[in-house]
Amino acid sequence: MNLKIAFQGETGAFSEEAAFCYWKENIQAKPCKGFKDVFEAVASKKCDAGIIPIENSETGSIHHNVDYLMQYDLSIVGEIILRIHHNLMVTPGSKLESIRAVYSHPQALDQCSQYLENIPQVQAYSMHDTAGAARWVADQNDPTIAAIASQRASQDYGLKIIGNHIENNHNNFTRFLIIQDKPITSRQKLKTSVVFSTKNVSGALFKALAVFALRDIDLLKIESRPLRKGPWAYWFYLDFEGGMHEEHCQNAIENLREISTFVKVLGSYPKGKTVK
Amino acid sequence: MNLKIAFQGETGAFSEEAAFCYWKENIQAKPCKGFKDVFEAVASKKCDAGIIPIENSETGSIHHNVDYLMQYDLSIVGEIILRIHHNLMVTPGSKLESIRAVYSHPQALDQCSQYLENIPQVQAYSMHDTAGAARWVADQNDPTIAAIASQRASQDYGLKIIGNHIENNHNNFTRFLIIQDKPITSRQKLKTSVVFSTKNVSGALFKALAVFALRDIDLLKIESRPLRKGPWAYWFYLDFEGGMHEEHCQNAIENLREISTFVKVLGSYPKGKTVK
Repeated sequence: MNLKIAFQGETGAFSEEAAFCYWKENIQAKPCKGFKDVFEAVASKKCDAGIIPIENSETGSIHHNVDYLMQYDLSIVGEIILRIHHNLMVTPGSKLESIRAVYSHPQALDQCSQYLENIPQVQAYSMHDTAGAARWVADQNDPTIAAIASQRASQDYGLKIIGNHIENNHNNFTRFLIIQDKPITSRQKLKTSVVFSTKNVSGALFKALAVFALRDIDLLKIESRPLRKGPWAYWFYLDFEGGMHEEHCQNAIENLREISTFVKVLGSYPKGKTVK
Repeated sequence: MNLKIAFQGETGAFSEEAAFCYWKENIQAKPCKGFKDVFEAVASKKCDAGIIPIENSETGSIHHNVDYLMQYDLSIVGEIILRIHHNLMVTPGSKLESIRAVYSHPQALDQCSQYLENIPQVQAYSMHDTAGAARWVADQNDPTIAAIASQRASQDYGLKIIGNHIENNHNNFTRFLIIQDKPITSRQKLKTSVVFSTKNVSGALFKALAVFALRDIDLLKIESRPLRKGPWAYWFYLDFEGGMHEEHCQNAIENLREISTFVKVLGSYPKGKTVK
């Protein structure tokens, strides 16, 4: 039986594409309205796993999802990095010369600004998501409107692509995390994500990083973030090389607990592939 | 003569409000279409200074603006932190019971999701910015539509607020930076922002932080970011306590240059006030 995978957005969303890349199509992808609904679907066992975007190479970390990772008792068990290609698509009878309006998520419109500047007769309108814009354009059946969305969305909604890979920056990647209700038992080469907060930022952060440096543990990502309570009190999100089944990583985390006010290991998982 | 200040968005945008808070109304605020246009307006001396959002307590850093800070030869000379209050506003004759549609930026709609769930008869629509949504609602003069925007936008466009401070999280703050074409000469207590990249992330980051720890320089913010070239090669954005007129800070930066592949000091500036 196929795994049920929760993702945020409508059919044709980039999260769904990432899910199909990760599981090689052998899944039932379940659209969810919000990110919180993805976490709920996995926590309530309605779905076997969820997929969430955590970081985009242009727009940065999606802190909402870091918040949910802290809130829910779920584990990160995998990751996949997807190149984000945007495409201009229309109803089958239309062509570039006919369109006067284009619909997409504001971030997608922004990421295709150079292409759009070259078709000044076309006015850009914001919609809540790229796949939703594609569905809407298909529903209207109006040759003067277009959507910017993924290739998968064009297939899902029977639209014709008239502009391929129209994003300004072809190095636009999104990293997605796979979440489940149990940590993985694999003992292959893993990386680990952890969040922690320290009593004060300066010396304490240096000491926190020493915990890893002393054990020759490579850091892969670090980010300080304002705590929800006060506006600019910080905690840290850290990715490091190694899994929690390894003794030196366990020791590092024990050591980190000694000098932190809060530590949560979000999961150990194999480094993800990049899909171009 | 009043200073000319470039900001991104339309009249009534949160950036404009931040500018008025920073300069106490004695300015001519100049709306710009994109963030790049703000940098251009300052670099070309069409404006005396610019104001840009750099970090939101919910949605994280605005990496585009970090990119422009690296690209343009401008200096950060100040900062201000603004509490983001959202308000539901309608044309003067309308009331809550009449409205069926609400327009705003998708991030603002998301930040008011709990309030919107309690008025299920109202459908939410995305627009490119909050102030633009307010202007549009005012233009339509239709009692069934509303906008979510700042109090300033309601005043600018003659709309009536029917829901005050409707954001889910009342600890929603945005930090704005002030940019000019010359560094400040003030010698008061300053903080400094710097970006740098290292040959490899793990030990090198620890050494980079040692440069500051050895001199008892407090860190205020750290963030690793994918380099534009490859998707997940990182550079760092760091805020530390102290100004570049101080010898121990100069020494720390010299030391940082020895062990980094790239260092750019973005500016030294007084810590900003928080406006609630």
